[in-house]
Amino acid sequence: MIAAWTWGGGWLAKTWSTMSLGAGYVDFAGSGVVHMVGGVAALTGALAIGPRLGKFNADGSSNTIAGHHIPMAMLGTFILLFGWFGFNAASTFAATDVQFATAATNTAIAGAFGAVAAMLYITRKTGKPDPGMMANGMLAGLVAITAPCAFVSPWAAAVIGVVAAIIVIEAVYFFERRGIDDPVGAISVHGVGGLLGVLSVGIFANGSYGAGWNGSSVEGVKGLLYGDAGQLGAQALGGVTILVVNGALSAAFFAIQKKVLKKGLRSSAQDELDGLDIAEMGVLAYPEFQGSHR
Amino acid sequence: MIAAWTWGGGWLAKTWSTMSLGAGYVDFAGSGVVHMVGGVAALTGALAIGPRLGKFNADGSSNTIAGHHIPMAMLGTFILLFGWFGFNAASTFAATDVQFATAATNTAIAGAFGAVAAMLYITRKTGKPDPGMMANGMLAGLVAITAPCAFVSPWAAAVIGVVAAIIVIEAVYFFERRGIDDPVGAISVHGVGGLLGVLSVGIFANGSYGAGWNGSSVEGVKGLLYGDAGQLGAQALGGVTILVVNGALSAAFFAIQKKVLKKGLRSSAQDELDGLDIAEMGVLAYPEFQGSHR
Amino acid sequence: MIAAWTWGGGWLAKTWSTMSLGAGYVDFAGSGVVHMVGGVAALTGALAIGPRLGKFNADGSSNTIAGHHIPMAMLGTFILLFGWFGFNAASTFAATDVQFATAATNTAIAGAFGAVAAMLYITRKTGKPDPGMMANGMLAGLVAITAPCAFVSPWAAAVIGVVAAIIVIEAVYFFERRGIDDPVGAISVHGVGGLLGVLSVGIFANGSYGAGWNGSSVEGVKGLLYGDAGQLGAQALGGVTILVVNGALSAAFFAIQKKVLKKGLRSSAQDELDGLDIAEMGVLAYPEFQGSHR
Repeated sequence: MIAAWTWGGGWLAKTWSTMSLGAGYVDFAGSGVVHMVGGVAALTGALAIGPRLGKFNADGSSNTIAGHHIPMAMLGTFILLFGWFGFNAASTFAATDVQFATAATNTAIAGAFGAVAAMLYITRKTGKPDPGMMANGMLAGLVAITAPCAFVSPWAAAVIGVVAAIIVIEAVYFFERRGIDDPVGAISVHGVGGLLGVLSVGIFANGSYGAGWNGSSVEGVKGLLYGDAGQLGAQALGGVTILVVNGALSAAFFAIQKKVLKKGLRSSAQDELDGLDIAEMGVLAYPEFQGSHR
Repeated sequence: MIAAWTWGGGWLAKTWSTMSLGAGYVDFAGSGVVHMVGGVAALTGALAIGPRLGKFNADGSSNTIAGHHIPMAMLGTFILLFGWFGFNAASTFAATDVQFATAATNTAIAGAFGAVAAMLYITRKTGKPDPGMMANGMLAGLVAITAPCAFVSPWAAAVIGVVAAIIVIEAVYFFERRGIDDPVGAISVHGVGGLLGVLSVGIFANGSYGAGWNGSSVEGVKGLLYGDAGQLGAQALGGVTILVVNGALSAAFFAIQKKVLKKGLRSSAQDELDGLDIAEMGVLAYPEFQGSHR
Repeated sequence: MIAAWTWGGGWLAKTWSTMSLGAGYVDFAGSGVVHMVGGVAALTGALAIGPRLGKFNADGSSNTIAGHHIPMAMLGTFILLFGWFGFNAASTFAATDVQFATAATNTAIAGAFGAVAAMLYITRKTGKPDPGMMANGMLAGLVAITAPCAFVSPWAAAVIGVVAAIIVIEAVYFFERRGIDDPVGAISVHGVGGLLGVLSVGIFANGSYGAGWNGSSVEGVKGLLYGDAGQLGAQALGGVTILVVNGALSAAFFAIQKKVLKKGLRSSAQDELDGLDIAEMGVLAYPEFQGSHR
């Protein structure tokens, strides 16, 4: 729904460009349409399902439930990075599009600066460069560059990556302090990082790309720093629309499921303590060399 | 041998096109030449070597010998999917070939439909969406689209993926019931899936590609659904040829090895119970943090 | 520094071409500039830090400290192989450069021949095809083809891969016998393999590419086998320069750190015995299903 409103001349894009809010709501490869939509759904889902058993103590403090295979998590993060080049750069209309290389370069810059900024920030905060937070920092940079990747200069991509990493780490702590259990930080990375990406277009777009987009008369999408406050307004309205519309729809979706499903949304306490692999998939991920290995 | 008979004007292609069996035997990227050849060899190998110790009980029933690292198996499956795009699409003569995008798209469709169909089918059968069967379903779809990927419409790729997934799951059970131990389902995925791919060209090829192939006078390779029963005949003869020729050669290959090799084809019972890593490679794959870690 | 001297007309390239030493020092994608530089730094680092606790016995003999996850090591090796095609082939000036395909093909050939040669050589030496040595053999072939990939014929790429694999395996044993602890063989693979790559240009370059490089008058870079002994001289001087300059700088770098850093270069014995993950990163890589899995 958000995609239809944004891409190909939906009202979110057209109406606002008609109101001369810059080029209207612009989201190149989906910081809002893809990531923020997912992050908002994650937030309503986490609220509907509640925290894992043992995550929070009676006094409201929280326990770390460590991942079981950090190298695999790192590998997955790098596979995402690799895929992101296709995602962002190939959202140009052709590999010969002048912005193809810009989108790819900005993607690399924002991801790298996000990873390094997260490493420095979490080390300053906790004394150690937590690998999970470094992964989240890189992903935050990638999420936040997804909307502006074709519109901003490389220096802006670096700034976006650094800002995204720091805000997303703070967001992880923010949601945890409020008793919301988000095992992989999806709300922070995709929701908060996505909103940052949506707004970044309205701040850093340098006017070199997007002439006439959404039927507007602009010679290129320009952010606040390049003199168009209206574009930032359009982006902010886009972010608010996603938050309200998707928040309401997701909340309704989970509430209906809770009513309709006999077992409810949540697995049984026994299944949760045993681990969900057996209950949901019927296999153990790592049966510790059972069978011929004993 | 099969490759020489099929590609570049071998008898399997030429003779049949001369007999006006459509365009003769056609196998774009190798459902038959690559996969069915391998699957038939796997069948003869499994028969020659026999089941793993502990796989079958005295009453003929079988035991599950679980994999030790399902996430790694899933990752390997996705690496195969990624490689398949090169395999199928790059079997066109150039990236500018009109069928390059068709081959790539059909590959994605058949793999995705295979995975989802396998998930639904195995859940209906056993109550759980077994990850190994989902992987086999995706691979079955990919194997079965390898021959027809440049010749069929996207809807046909979806049908091929679904049919391949269901038949391959049944094949896994079929071979197991007959006391043939195939640890990763290679006979079913590559042999049965490969035969399906070979036949699919003769059913679903829509006539848009392959004009004059193999020296024939056809304007495009056409399957049964598009009016050319001869093409299905050519494909069936191709499948039978691979089954007979490769089955005989592989059986002879294993029989000779069994005679010639002093130790026979099979590792010792002790090595098998210890796991083959030490016996064959000289290392343990996962030494459980030995050395400096205690 | 070495990069500036080599690429874009630095003294290492220009002076020697002026001296008519063939086309001067040539290093296409960095066997010397990247890998040998790293390998020499690894050697000085290993000397400065010293061997791991428990690696060497009082009588000078050494113990194997096994890796903990061989499949992950193999996967990493193949990811390197995949990335190497970008590294070597994309060091041409454009994907339409005539040498793009040559560089990519030679990369594949040297890596494959390196892996197979290492398998055969280590099996002959120890009786088992050690996976770590096969990985090192493939990497050695890839490192050694990095400098000559655009200049040599495919048969030469095969020879380079085989020679690199054998010499690198012997180098691993050589450094271990001298009490130098190199946990992943970086000195041998990148240092020794890199030097081999630098020299290979001077032996196998076939004159088909590199006309006028470095301001020389050559019609193409030619190695000893194609009649230009001067080119081998230029390459040897390049290798010696890297060894001396980088060896001195790296040794100074580590010596200064040792003086300046309060804790010295090395982690505490207790942290080393516990494993560095907790001490350095603050997490365990594999917490053995702690938390809800107990």
